[in-house]
This record gives sequence, C-alpha cells and structure tokens, in this order.
Amino acid sequence: MTVEIQNGVKDVQSALPLVQKLSKDHDLVLKTFRLLIADLCQQFNGGHPGGAIGMAAIGVSLWKYVMRYAPHSPGFFNRDRFVLSNGHTCLFQYSFLHLTGYKAMTFEQLKSYHSDRVDALCPGHPEIEHEGIEVTTGPLGQGIANAVGLAMATKNLAATYNRPGFDVVNNHTWCMIGDACLQEGVGLEAISLAGHFRLNNLTVIYDNNQITCDGSVDLTNTEDVNAKMRACGWNVIEVSDGCFDIEGIVAALEQARASTEKPTFINIKTVIGLDSSVAGTAVAHGAAFGAKSIVDMKTAYGFNPEEHFVIGESVRRFFQGLPERGEQWVQEWDQLVREYTSKYPELGANFQSRVRGELPVNWQDHIPTSFPDKPTATRAASGMVFNPVAKEVNSFMVGTADLSPSVNMIWPGKVDFQHPDLRTTCGINGDYAGRYIHYGVREHAMAAISNGLAAYSPNTIIPVTSTFFMFYLYAAPAVRMGALQHLQIIHVATHDSIGMGEDGPTHQPIELANLYRAMPNLLYIRPGDSEETAGAWIAAIGAKNTPSIISTSRQTLPQLAETRRESVALGAYVLSEAESATVTLIGVGAELSFALQVADQLKAQKGIIARVVSFPCQRLFERQSLKYKRDTLQRHRGIPAVVIEPYAPNGWERYADAGICVTRFGHSLPGKAAYKFFGFETDTLTSKIANYLEQISKDEFLRGEFVEL
Amino acid sequence: MTVEIQNGVKDVQSALPLVQKLSKDHDLVLKTFRLLIADLCQQFNGGHPGGAIGMAAIGVSLWKYVMRYAPHSPGFFNRDRFVLSNGHTCLFQYSFLHLTGYKAMTFEQLKSYHSDRVDALCPGHPEIEHEGIEVTTGPLGQGIANAVGLAMATKNLAATYNRPGFDVVNNHTWCMIGDACLQEGVGLEAISLAGHFRLNNLTVIYDNNQITCDGSVDLTNTEDVNAKMRACGWNVIEVSDGCFDIEGIVAALEQARASTEKPTFINIKTVIGLDSSVAGTAVAHGAAFGAKSIVDMKTAYGFNPEEHFVIGESVRRFFQGLPERGEQWVQEWDQLVREYTSKYPELGANFQSRVRGELPVNWQDHIPTSFPDKPTATRAASGMVFNPVAKEVNSFMVGTADLSPSVNMIWPGKVDFQHPDLRTTCGINGDYAGRYIHYGVREHAMAAISNGLAAYSPNTIIPVTSTFFMFYLYAAPAVRMGALQHLQIIHVATHDSIGMGEDGPTHQPIELANLYRAMPNLLYIRPGDSEETAGAWIAAIGAKNTPSIISTSRQTLPQLAETRRESVALGAYVLSEAESATVTLIGVGAELSFALQVADQLKAQKGIIARVVSFPCQRLFERQSLKYKRDTLQRHRGIPAVVIEPYAPNGWERYADAGICVTRFGHSLPGKAAYKFFGFETDTLTSKIANYLEQISKDEFLRGEFVEL
Repeated sequence: MTVEIQNGVKDVQSALPLVQKLSKDHDLVLKTFRLLIADLCQQFNGGHPGGAIGMAAIGVSLWKYVMRYAPHSPGFFNRDRFVLSNGHTCLFQYSFLHLTGYKAMTFEQLKSYHSDRVDALCPGHPEIEHEGIEVTTGPLGQGIANAVGLAMATKNLAATYNRPGFDVVNNHTWCMIGDACLQEGVGLEAISLAGHFRLNNLTVIYDNNQITCDGSVDLTNTEDVNAKMRACGWNVIEVSDGCFDIEGIVAALEQARASTEKPTFINIKTVIGLDSSVAGTAVAHGAAFGAKSIVDMKTAYGFNPEEHFVIGESVRRFFQGLPERGEQWVQEWDQLVREYTSKYPELGANFQSRVRGELPVNWQDHIPTSFPDKPTATRAASGMVFNPVAKEVNSFMVGTADLSPSVNMIWPGKVDFQHPDLRTTCGINGDYAGRYIHYGVREHAMAAISNGLAAYSPNTIIPVTSTFFMFYLYAAPAVRMGALQHLQIIHVATHDSIGMGEDGPTHQPIELANLYRAMPNLLYIRPGDSEETAGAWIAAIGAKNTPSIISTSRQTLPQLAETRRESVALGAYVLSEAESATVTLIGVGAELSFALQVADQLKAQKGIIARVVSFPCQRLFERQSLKYKRDTLQRHRGIPAVVIEPYAPNGWERYADAGICVTRFGHSLPGKAAYKFFGFETDTLTSKIANYLEQISKDEFLRGEFVEL
Repeated sequence: MTVEIQNGVKDVQSALPLVQKLSKDHDLVLKTFRLLIADLCQQFNGGHPGGAIGMAAIGVSLWKYVMRYAPHSPGFFNRDRFVLSNGHTCLFQYSFLHLTGYKAMTFEQLKSYHSDRVDALCPGHPEIEHEGIEVTTGPLGQGIANAVGLAMATKNLAATYNRPGFDVVNNHTWCMIGDACLQEGVGLEAISLAGHFRLNNLTVIYDNNQITCDGSVDLTNTEDVNAKMRACGWNVIEVSDGCFDIEGIVAALEQARASTEKPTFINIKTVIGLDSSVAGTAVAHGAAFGAKSIVDMKTAYGFNPEEHFVIGESVRRFFQGLPERGEQWVQEWDQLVREYTSKYPELGANFQSRVRGELPVNWQDHIPTSFPDKPTATRAASGMVFNPVAKEVNSFMVGTADLSPSVNMIWPGKVDFQHPDLRTTCGINGDYAGRYIHYGVREHAMAAISNGLAAYSPNTIIPVTSTFFMFYLYAAPAVRMGALQHLQIIHVATHDSIGMGEDGPTHQPIELANLYRAMPNLLYIRPGDSEETAGAWIAAIGAKNTPSIISTSRQTLPQLAETRRESVALGAYVLSEAESATVTLIGVGAELSFALQVADQLKAQKGIIARVVSFPCQRLFERQSLKYKRDTLQRHRGIPAVVIEPYAPNGWERYADAGICVTRFGHSLPGKAAYKFFGFETDTLTSKIANYLEQISKDEFLRGEFVEL
C-alpha cells in the first residue's frame, strides 16, 4: 500500500478497520468481478472489458466502503454522486449496480449488454435515464466537467441552505476517468475551474493504465500529470497498486473526502485487462478477449472454465446489506430535513420546493409586461426580461464565458459563485451561495458543467449560460449532451447574425443555426424584438426537459407593434395578414423588421400585397397541428413564401419557396454595412422579391424548387 | 530587465548590442505606437486598443530585432511565422505590418480599421487572405494550436529535406497569446502536444496583463501557469517589465529561439491600455478610450493633442531597411536552394515541387481501379483507396485522435511523427520526418493543428485527420476555421449514422451532417460503397482550396454494380433509371443500398416503378447546372422524391418531397438492430413509401409539403 498524502488532506483512517476485517474476501470478489466482465463481453463478442477489469478494486472500494448511496432510493437527494467519465467502461458501473442491489439492474438486465434487446438497461455508455446513473457519458471529457458541475451544485445548495447542525446537503462527487479525460480540452478547462473554485467535495480517480486505443499513452502524452494537477490547484494522491490494494484505495478515497481546501486527484496505477492474455495492451480496450483467453483466466483463478457469469454465494454475501445501509441514510436525512424545516420554516419550505424542482408560482410576475418604445438590442431585452427573475428566483445559476459586459446577464446585487476566501485575497464579491459564475474563456466547460448542475436533481438548479452565438460551436458537444439527457438549461447566445458587425467572419454565424435547428430536443429561438424576447424566455423557462438557445442581437432593433410574446410558443405566427396577399414574407429574429419594411415597400412601390409571418422557432412550430401550420404559412393556397435570414438556408426549404440568405462566410464590416454588403437592406430585398414573383410566374418548374435570391 | 533562464535554453546575447545601440529611440517608438493604436480605435469609436498598446514593446522586439521575414516577399518560404492568437488585438499586427514596410498595408489601409470600406485589409481579426497574415484568428485558442501545426510543419519539412550544410527549412514560429488561450480547451490540448513533440522551434509569448473582459483573471483562473507549462514539457522564461524592457524581451526571445529540447513559454508582464485613463482595467480591452483620455495621453507624452495618427520621421527611420534585410534573406535562401538542388537533384526537385504545392502528376495511379466483390465498410475502403497514396506521396500528413485501430489510416511502413528520442526512451517508431500523427484524444486540437500544417504554405502539406464522425463536433470550430481560410484538409469521419451501433446515442450522429452541409466552403461527402469512396477521395484531393469530410461507415456495405467514382464529383447522379418511374428514391452513403433494395421490392410487391439517385454530396450537386439538377431529380416532371437517410432531414427538403429520416437521438443497439429500431429495413421502407405515394394521390396539399415518413 502506497499512499502519498499531500497538504490540505486530513489523514482519515476510519474506514480501514472495516476493510481489513473483510479483506479475506477481496481476492475472490475481484476475481469474480473480472470474470464477469470478461464473460459479459465475450457473450456477444464486443464491448470494452479492459478498463472495467483494471478498475475492479477501485469499484469495490467505492461501492462497498466509501460512497454514500441508497440502491433502493436511487434518487436520494443527498447521495454521493458517481460519474463514469470513461463511459465506455460502463460494465464496471452496471456490474456494481447489480451487485449492490439496484432493483432495475437484474442479472438478466446485466446480461443484456450488447444484446439486441430494445429495452436494455445496459447501453454501450451509461445513460441518465437508468437507475443509479447520474449523467450520460461516452464522449470523453464530458463526465469530468459534469462532475465539476455536480460538485458546484452541492457547494451552492449547501451554502444556501445548510445551517449549524443541519447539513442538509453535504454529498461528495466521485469521478472516474481514464487517460482521455486528461487530454480532452473540455476536461482540462473543467479541471482548471475546479481548482480555482477549490471544490474540496470533488474527487477525480484516475484509472492510470497508460493505455489508449492507439497503444501506450507515451505515443501522445509525456507530461507530468501530477505536477500539472497541482499547478491547477488540486491535491494529488498516488496509489501504486490499484489492481489489488483495496485498503490503500479506500484510505486515499477517505483522505480525499476529508480534503478541506482543494479538489483531489487520485492517481491510481492499474493494468488494463488484468490477467487476460492481452493484459496491459491496447487490445484489451475495446474487444472481447476471446473464448480461449477467458478459459485460461478461469483456470488460473481456480474457476470452472465451463461456467459463465458466476457470482458465488460468498460474493453475494460480501455485497449484502448495502440497500439497508442506504435506507438508513435516507431516513436519517429525512429526519434531519424535518427538524430543519421545523426550526427554519421558510428556508425549509424553500429547500423542499427546490428538492421537488419547483419554481415559485409567481415567477412570471418578475418579467416586464411592456418595454420602452425605443430601439433595443434583444441581448439588452433579454437582460430586462430575465435579470429580475434571476434576482428573485434562486433556482437559476447564471454564467458567462468571459463576456459579462456584452451579454447583459448581471442583475443588481448579484453575487459571484466563488470560494469565499477570494473576498479577502482578491477583493471579489463572491461565496458559494453566489449564483453568477465566471467560467472564463471556457465555453465548452461552461456548457458541460451546466449539464452537471442540472443533473444534480431534476430542475433543482436551472443553469443559464451565455456567450456570443458563434462560440456555442465550441460548446456544441456539451449542448448536445444536455439535449440528449433532457436537462433544462438555457443558453443565451448574443451577437447572432452578420449584424454583429466588425468582428467579422470568425464571429458571424452562418451555418450554426442549422446545427441547432436539427438537434433533437433543443429549442433554438430567435426573437425579433423585446416582446418576442419575453416570449422566448417564457418558453425556455417552461421547457422542463429541454435545453433552449435564446439567440439575440448585438445591435438595436425596433420595437414592433405586431409581435406577441404568447405566440412565440407557437414557433411561428402571422404578424401581418392580408387577404389578397400574393406572397408571404417570413421574418426571423434580428431581421424580422426587414420583413415588415419590405412588405410596406412592396405594396407602395410595386403594388404587391405581402403577408408577414414571424418565425422565431422551427421546433416549436413543428409541434403545432397541420391545420395551424397551413393557416400560418398559406402555401397550400399557392402563396409562395420567402424567408429573410442571413444564415445558410438549409432547412427553410420546408417552410419557404425561396430565401434571401447567406451561403458564404461573413465579412468584417460595421453591422449596417455588413447587412448592406449581403443585400439585407429594404430596397435590395424588395426588388429581389418582386423579381422572384415575376420569375415564377414565367417558369412553371421554378415554383416547385427552392430558390436562393 | 529580469530574464529567468530555464534549462534547455542557451544564453544567446547576439541581438543585445544592436538593441542597446538603438535604445534611445525606443521611448519615442513606443509612445508613437501607443498613440497610433488609440487614435485608430477612437476614429470610428470601436475596436480593441488595450492589448495592442500593452504589447507594444513585444512587437518592437519581434519585428525590429528578432523575427526573420521579408515585407516585400510576404510568401518567403522559410520566413518565421507569426501567429496572433489573441486576434482581437489585430491592430498590433496591422500597425507593425505598416511600419515594417508591407506594401499592401498603406497608411490609408491601416486607417480603414472599423470603417465601412468593403475592401479594407484591416478586418476585426487578422485574415489569412491579407499580406503578412499567416492564419486567420479570433476564436480564442485556435491560433496557438495553429502555431503548433506551423512548428510541426517546419520540423517535418526540415527532417525530410535538410541535409548537412543545407538547412533549407529552419524557420521559427512565434505565437502571441493572451489569458484566454491558456483557458480554452483547444489551446490546452495543443500545449500538451507541443510539449510532447518537443517543438523547440515554437515560442509562445504570453501577454500577461491579468485582465479579461470580465475583469481580473483572478475571477476565474488562479492556477500556477508557469508550473503548469513546465509540467507540460515547456521551458518557461519570465519578463517582469513587458511594457518597456525591449532589451529583456529580445534576450528572452533569442533564448527561446536557441532552445534545443523544448518549446518555450515567455511569460511577459504587461499593462493593458498602458497610460490611458483605463490602464490596467477590463474597460481598456474592447472599447475606444474616448477623446479626452487620448488628449491626456498625448499631452503626457509630449505630443500635440490636436494631431492624429502621427508617425514622426525618426520613428519611420527606426523601421527603415527591414524590407531590404528581408530581401537579402530571400536571396540567400534562393541561393541555398539552388546549391542544394544541384547537390541533391532528386530531393531538390521534390522539395521545389512541394514548395509550389504540387502533387506528383501520377498520384491517382495509386488508387485501386476496382475492389474485391465482397461487403466492405467504407472506412475500410477509405484505407484501401488512400493508404497507398499516403505511402507514396509525402505531402500527406495523416493523423487520428486515438482511433488508429478503427479508422484504417495506417499504411504499410508508416513512421510516426515524433521526437526521435522516443525511439530509445519509449520504443516508438518515429521521428520528425514521420507523417503519421498520434494526436491523442484531442479532436479539436487535431483539426486546429491541421489548419496550421496546411497554412504553412499552400498545399505543401495536405493534412488528413480522422476520428468517428460524431467527434467532429468537438473539432467543429477548427474545421470551420479551415473552411473559412480555404485550406485543403481532408477529414476522414468513420462510424457515421446509427448503423455504427452499440456505442449508442452519444456516438450516433443525427444532426451533425446538417452543420457540415450548411458550412460554407466545405465538402461533406458520404460515399455509398468502395467505388464511391474512391470518388470521394479523388474529389477531396482535387479540392485545393476547400476542406472535405469523407463520411464512412463502421459496418460492411455491399459493393454496388451501379456506382461510379467519377460521378461523385457531380454530387448526385442517377444510379438506376426508369422511364415510367412514379417515384425517385434518394439513397445516401451507408444507406444507399437500402434505396436499391426498396426499388426492387416496390416493383416486385407493389408494382411501383422507382428510379434511384445516389446523393453523396449536396455541395457538389449545388455546383451543377440547373439542367443537370433537374435531369437528375426529375421533380420538375412531377415525380416525387423520397430521401432515405437516418439523419435529421433539415435541408433535404430542397431535393426531396418526403424523407425517411431520424429526428430523435439514437439508441444503443447492434447496427442492424438499430436500423430496424428506426425503421431502416427493406420491408418497412417499402411500405412507408408505398403509403406515401397513395397519400399524396389523395391529399392535394400534401404534395407541396415535405413529409417525414
């Protein structure tokens, strides 16, 4: 046993006697576990056995000795959270869920891994929908960032609600990682932030087997990882024999839990695919070992090579009693919360409402019912709408990737989420009860950490992120993971469209909306003025299982008399109707006012009657009835529709017959000049549309084809 | 002057006498430069003055004393490369380009910053199209990764072509960064790789002003950056007075250039917006200082506050002679290459061909003319097509984000790009002449570094990247920068579509193709079998100014008799014609064979005649004539088209009337079972299409609306 204790970690030995007492069972438990994994992969000849086998002793240490959880109450609010950031080793977690008594994870279910069973609980990577899984992982680096978010959630809730003698929230977050999470940028961003925030309630356990798909980690990473973690503000503990030394691992984990000042990184040396014929090699990573190798393993272990999936009685016994232990913790916590609520009635009621994921019933009352009648950027309107809500409703944790002066998310009296010591050392107005998060220039981690904040418990925390729309491309993998996990997160994307101006093509989104409009379970909403911005926020706050992107303008936009906040929820609605119309103009977001102006000009200059539809959200529109959709667009009556939006048109073909769009990268010019450069000014738009209407009256085929004007 | 010299850095003082001789001019040069920046931002009341002003002394050190470049030969092959990774400080670079004599950057042009001049050379961020700019920067973290690629390009070309006494390639890469590039994940990934590769020809200069948009860096980053860089394998040099100490900066830069073993990180303390009224604060970052502040600065500096854009005679003189110095370097290099070519005729001819960005005329001869007639995954076909080319043509540098066993990019005898010492320390078969790059699990840096490799000189190196298609979402910001910069890069995306199977929804792309089909100047190509894979590669290698994504299957696909490699270049083509057809089936990529099978079954079971179109690339199809497009799709003749692709349909509405697509996230199941789960099997597809045809014959409106089947 080798445990190197760093500063800031108390030496806690409490778990050790228990471990030593039981250690005679460990050898058999580890062997059983390893063979189980090997069999489960061999069964359908696929999967990832090597990592799970290498981490066996870590798993026993966690689930048997260290973690506080309740297999029969998987949603126990104050449970320790476990994140498998190296999600491909999911059999590791599934097997422990089975062994420790999670009801859903029956032996039959466990054996469904890689089967064609549609209702299997053992997908190729852990999925949040299933009992005992805290977050969906798989894309590397996401899980460790989620874990940072989970630990921040604990810190925030604890600082908000705990009172002397009443630690109603004090769980720990444990995150298992492989080599990849130390290579992926999102992981490195999150590591840096965790150190900055001094999250002593977070422990990252590094399955240091020095093997990735390509072979030795030396092929691509020769850095001093311990020194790097220390430089980032982490404790570092090393365990040299991670394959067998359960006592050492438990001691390290308990020391990590007792850390007072820093998150802890436990660097545990393991052997991938231990005792298989491919042990210690990349071959052990992502393929079954083959029947012969497993026979050899079983023989060497003293098991019957002809038996599969063997979990002996003594091993079952070893894991007995864990559900009961968990239920006791649940009852103790329930009792604590009752006493707490009795002593602090208001706080207790608020806490319990948060636990249920409820917002105050009057949250909408904080939203202004009208706006000053002057040109206003929708990014500014967004602040007017949401900041009063954020100020009053403590479910919202709001952050930005270093664009506070631009995104307008600061409410009066906001307090930063920070370690309280920074008040004295840096003069920063923050503590852990603060709800404004300076993520730094780390868009990807911002979104991935927000997934963790949201995953802590359904809707207890509603994370809000913000940066320029274009930088949500950096964050996209994590935005996707939020959508996949049905987490409510609200992303406030400012500076959308070429109208953002001088920053030029690197900052002007052209094709990004296409990604988010196509992404399942996500609302991409482009409000056209302040009133629609209110509608966008109401839709986003109402979407309990869906992330939203509210896409706003840098530049000021006119307040339009015709817009209605309630209609944003319909996705699209008629802004200006005209019985005799021969064309429908579809206006979107920052360019909505163009559509109204062009309609006026078409009538005045060309005698063409146009109706105007505002179209803030395709996904919300798709949810409407066929009748509503036809009534809104009127294409079934033969009225052609033209969309006006300086984005790539892909997808608008469903709603429009022609588009004035942008299919090249942008250009660095002041906003108005950029619009002009790309033909977004009333005269040009008007003449393009008039020409188009003339053209289709002449070419019978053109009517059925989407035309870029 | 404080210069801390670390191990691995020689103490080179050669530049110092020159600096000391001229130092009497420095004060005036720095003041002139700072006022110039302040005036340029004040002129149109916008821009980013603070950083540029803080870095003035660094710029003088680089452009006057240290960098080797040729203002009148901006494309000089062996020039030092300079990357402004903190691209928002672009005025810094534009001003030095003007002062040092780049012809295009006239005084008038310099003053166009933030103007509405459409042909301005001073966009809001540096753009590669303009003289003296090596890469387009702006999205933070990209530039530092590009710089790593540029330095790797030098290493590879040097190891390939240099001979004793003939260092035909030995330039240095200098990269300026701010705080953000040390926070962004892509920067951290690249830093780790640069240390691993021991790129001693790379120097990163950290403008350490401790200010970002939100305020003090302490708000979000309190790590020990020097220790972190050392842990990543970098030399660290500190300069304490970066605002004035040109001698100290020059010494540090020269020491960095002389590093023998490691890349160098120069941590230079500066003051943002020095001497302005907002010096040292976040306000100095992104807004003009205001007229009064500039008057005060000019008065304090002894300048006439009523004069603007003043560059005095002595300052002009200070920068005189730099073009001539540059031309001398160009001539010396030309002479060196002549002598080299005379001594090594074959190598010299190859080198000069690479310098011109040419491929051997016979490169296509290495591609197989036919394929074994057995089911073959297109990822495997991709290897069959390209690996023989990669083996023979040394323009290609090929890498993967730790998926070597999956992406099939290894050719027989491939040698890794590695520091040669790893042969002895780790037994790795690599050196700098190697052309196979283990990027590690760093998809974003892989793409961003590839941009740097490609930007070294047009088409001299053609970088090839590879990973699962889904992980190109991690890489997307860098893929976009490649497209924006018209760089030829080939991305090999394997495991596309739900057919990739068990890895589940985190790995199954649904909406990602929508991003890349909408992204300007990018070819997203999904070949349907081995023959089309050959066509995809030929199109990608032929696209000299455009990156491509070749999107391939994990699973085996039948070899189709009807496919033609030449036709891939058309984007879509008729695979199976039928005069009397009543429906067109559009097949794509891995699901192309479904379309053919369904056509057969529709005829056999329902008596419905279907024609089949293969549609590997929307962008290539868009480039065809209207006649070709109509002839291919036949929708103008009233024949409805149905697309079969398990992706989000957005955008297919342009080409199809209905789609059998997927609009939710995927499901973890073996490939065939996943297809079945989503209705992608011949029976289901056939009946859906037959039903659709019946439906539209009844509902007159439905014909004009895209229908998801």
